[in-house]
Amino acid sequence: MQNFSLNSRLQEDCTVLLERDEISFLLHQNAEVFWFILVPHTQEIEFHELDQAKQQQLLGLINRLSAFIQNSFNIDKLNIAMIGNVVSQMHIHVVGRSLNDAYWPDVVWGRSFEKTYTAQQVEEIQQQLIAFLK
Amino acid sequence: MQNFSLNSRLQEDCTVLLERDEISFLLHQNAEVFWFILVPHTQEIEFHELDQAKQQQLLGLINRLSAFIQNSFNIDKLNIAMIGNVVSQMHIHVVGRSLNDAYWPDVVWGRSFEKTYTAQQVEEIQQQLIAFLK
Repeated sequence: MQNFSLNSRLQEDCTVLLERDEISFLLHQNAEVFWFILVPHTQEIEFHELDQAKQQQLLGLINRLSAFIQNSFNIDKLNIAMIGNVVSQMHIHVVGRSLNDAYWPDVVWGRSFEKTYTAQQVEEIQQQLIAFLK
Repeated sequence: MQNFSLNSRLQEDCTVLLERDEISFLLHQNAEVFWFILVPHTQEIEFHELDQAKQQQLLGLINRLSAFIQNSFNIDKLNIAMIGNVVSQMHIHVVGRSLNDAYWPDVVWGRSFEKTYTAQQVEEIQQQLIAFLK
């Protein structure tokens, strides 16, 4: 999609780890959990309005990102969600959760956080993700 | 899957509207929103661990259920999620949200509710869904 621009709230809350095939991979700065977000470069708001090819591409990436989180971090459960009540630009949360994390068993949305990533930690996660997706 | 049995918490919170091809369609009794749940009859816990055929079947049903909710009720946004922190049996939430609902723009999980469906309302929704899926 031409003229894609990432929603300002997502820009504030997250770091863009990589972009490929018109999908942005973000890391939420909330380091209480392992919170990744996929942003397809589309104007559609609802997932079922995407064409089949884009849905399949996203499904593949949800699977890959799930495996990455499960393999790379010490987690007990994955939470996957498309909400979009606050930020309507389509985005898919893929969050690694632990029985010991700050919110368990509650959901992560709408919660405050104190722990954030250092620039070095973000870079490490970025490199791990790029290596995994190769 | 043989010997499938619906998790007791889902049994308490929801009504089974229909079962087809080893997937149960539930309606949450919380009538503040339009809250449907798909339960694949599987022992897997995480979505990315399902085989491709089951994923595709679920993707198709998420699309159909999304269209059903959008067409049948006065909603502004769909929320789709796989969480499973409290109930580990795999289940997919597909929730129709309105700018005027009790929780907007917050998420629905972990919230109390006062409004529930009457038996007649449940039956109407059940008939609507069956007709839509034909």
